[in-house]
Amino acid sequence: MSDFDDDASDLEESPFFVQSLAKGLSVITAMGTQHSQVSLADVARATSLTRATARRLVLTLERLGYVRGTDGLYSLTPKVLELGFSFLGSTSIPEAAQPHLEALSRSVGESTSASLLDGTDIVYVARVSARRTVSLSIDIGTRLPAYATAMGRVLLAALPDRELNEMLAGLTLRQLTERTIRSKDALHAEIDRVREQGWAMVDQEALEIGLLSIAAPVSRAGRVVAAINISSSANRVAAVDLVAEFRAPLLATARAVSAELEHRDLR
Amino acid sequence: MSDFDDDASDLEESPFFVQSLAKGLSVITAMGTQHSQVSLADVARATSLTRATARRLVLTLERLGYVRGTDGLYSLTPKVLELGFSFLGSTSIPEAAQPHLEALSRSVGESTSASLLDGTDIVYVARVSARRTVSLSIDIGTRLPAYATAMGRVLLAALPDRELNEMLAGLTLRQLTERTIRSKDALHAEIDRVREQGWAMVDQEALEIGLLSIAAPVSRAGRVVAAINISSSANRVAAVDLVAEFRAPLLATARAVSAELEHRDLR
Repeated sequence: MSDFDDDASDLEESPFFVQSLAKGLSVITAMGTQHSQVSLADVARATSLTRATARRLVLTLERLGYVRGTDGLYSLTPKVLELGFSFLGSTSIPEAAQPHLEALSRSVGESTSASLLDGTDIVYVARVSARRTVSLSIDIGTRLPAYATAMGRVLLAALPDRELNEMLAGLTLRQLTERTIRSKDALHAEIDRVREQGWAMVDQEALEIGLLSIAAPVSRAGRVVAAINISSSANRVAAVDLVAEFRAPLLATARAVSAELEHRDLR
Repeated sequence: MSDFDDDASDLEESPFFVQSLAKGLSVITAMGTQHSQVSLADVARATSLTRATARRLVLTLERLGYVRGTDGLYSLTPKVLELGFSFLGSTSIPEAAQPHLEALSRSVGESTSASLLDGTDIVYVARVSARRTVSLSIDIGTRLPAYATAMGRVLLAALPDRELNEMLAGLTLRQLTERTIRSKDALHAEIDRVREQGWAMVDQEALEIGLLSIAAPVSRAGRVVAAINISSSANRVAAVDLVAEFRAPLLATARAVSAELEHRDLR
């Protein structure tokens, strides 16, 4: 079942909901999960749409240049990428952060990133890889659960109490590594600590054992809008040294990005 | 006027064209050109839709999580990025190329990339930046005119004659730098040369003066599906040295990526 079919009765009652837009977007995401060309029957199956509906949507996407077809087999075109990058065009945060993250990465010799909160996930919007960490595949658009990451905890710490409590209540903590935080009480206490100290450190709780991250908030007009981090390997640096060495340059960079955003808003 | 309104009469005649999908996608791209939140009136103006239609589409996108609204002002959410990355999920080329491009970049100390042909443009689908070239902003999804780039000429050279001639006939050559190729005859001669030698070199014709690139084709099942390149700066290396130094490792990497794609198809 696709997302919008889950509560179709509710949605169909709304005169504002445009079913064919929702269905068309589900066709794009469904085609993105296939590593090869797909038939109209494949699309219909993956989206729970009728074959006739799938056909009209795929042909419309083909006409618009988002899909290419040969001999009844269809695939997405690179034009779909532009659709995604619409988001990056709509926010000045990646552009403002990138040069500062590059300078920070050069100065500390580690990878740096910026991310935003989207629901209960963080989404990477900028990333500078230190050459030595090429093995770890994090790219713009990568999503990770906020609760298990340093950037996520910085962003959760900035939520108003009511919103934070609602989110925590609905959350399921998964053991992403053997060190991922296990209880919501411990998570809440950790978030309180982040609120007090103004930065977060996560020691091998997300992605893979061996990964350390320290993060700080970026503000715009007094509101936290993003987080930036420095990530390193437990093989190279102990958690306590990560904080001692990187906290000051990280906080300075966070202030610089915040100032840059303020400056852009005034232009 | 938005794209699909240009020949609305033609399209409206087709029973297969889903107008509201086309309009919804145009809302996403229009919102991506704004660097801030927009009102429904802004969306209507940018897309040439009525205010009522714009409202239904924006509310549908909000319901689906692609748009976020507060106080009548709307912006895209990072979920839109996922839509774009659908394309990357649908092709195994970036994944197959990335480790080889990283090894190549490390061994030659320059930036490396992979791109696909989309219409008359190349679109970057993988990129490894040598630390020293951070100033130049090329990212996944970046589009450049094929005729002015080395990767583009490799991809044009792989087109059947009829398709190539049709494309060249419809093309307008723009002077991207003072060195960009000026005549279609010269371009055709250059493409013939690329066909013979199996690689292309472009000396400061695209993007900016100072940029050199050498490119080679990647094949899958005997058909060219992508191009990879090494790009460098005219300050560091002369065009003739670029070829002498980098051609062999570039061609070896192109063969390795082609073999990797073949291997994946056989699995």
